[in-house]
Amino acid sequence: MSHSAKNLKNTREFKRSPCPVASTLDILGDKWTLLVVRDLLMGKTTYGDFQKSPERIPTNILAERLKRLELAGIIGKSRYQDRPVRYAYALTPMGRDLQPVLLAMVDWGNRYLPGTLPKSRILAMQGKTKPGE
Amino acid sequence: MSHSAKNLKNTREFKRSPCPVASTLDILGDKWTLLVVRDLLMGKTTYGDFQKSPERIPTNILAERLKRLELAGIIGKSRYQDRPVRYAYALTPMGRDLQPVLLAMVDWGNRYLPGTLPKSRILAMQGKTKPGE
Repeated sequence: MSHSAKNLKNTREFKRSPCPVASTLDILGDKWTLLVVRDLLMGKTTYGDFQKSPERIPTNILAERLKRLELAGIIGKSRYQDRPVRYAYALTPMGRDLQPVLLAMVDWGNRYLPGTLPKSRILAMQGKTKPGE
Repeated sequence: MSHSAKNLKNTREFKRSPCPVASTLDILGDKWTLLVVRDLLMGKTTYGDFQKSPERIPTNILAERLKRLELAGIIGKSRYQDRPVRYAYALTPMGRDLQPVLLAMVDWGNRYLPGTLPKSRILAMQGKTKPGE
């Protein structure tokens, strides 16, 4: 809770990221899970891709959230490398249908949180993210 | 995190509430803040009203979230009683504009989380909640 309060106190002066979803969830609560969904919607697929996002998800939280999302039926994984074993993650139809929730956050963030990336730019970027970028 | 994992494990067998927003956020993360916004959108205004919601927000979390929401410009408060001092809370325009985010969660919850209250019923209830109900 002190963590949340600290985030909030800094919301107006400091943004960890220009992403309106990240900015909205800085106010609205724990955001890691939806940020992984956001990354998947944007075309990222691997553990390494998610870790490179500007919000810098801690590795233990990322591992836990991926398990959670898989258990909930929101993502699936497929092995793409054997030594060491590595997985590619993808949204299920149930997961892809979270897009309107995130887009509603984008609209709200664009309207009320100055400096957030405009929706038009986000939609133009969508699907153009290459693995490793 | 163990708290979240526990919530998730029980998501399919047990629902704390038939509200699709609550059910969605049981999967998607900390939900208290958006649940207070939901209550305000439904016409609730007082501390006591929020506490009566079926999710049973703990009193210390409620107090902290109300402060957070006020500081973020999402709610405002007005004193309606002096001894003891009591406040009525209301969404600002910025707060009311979170409705599309919650409605997108309602749609998703209705589609993927069996047993959640249908949107039509929620919209019919909206604004009909009297203080103290």
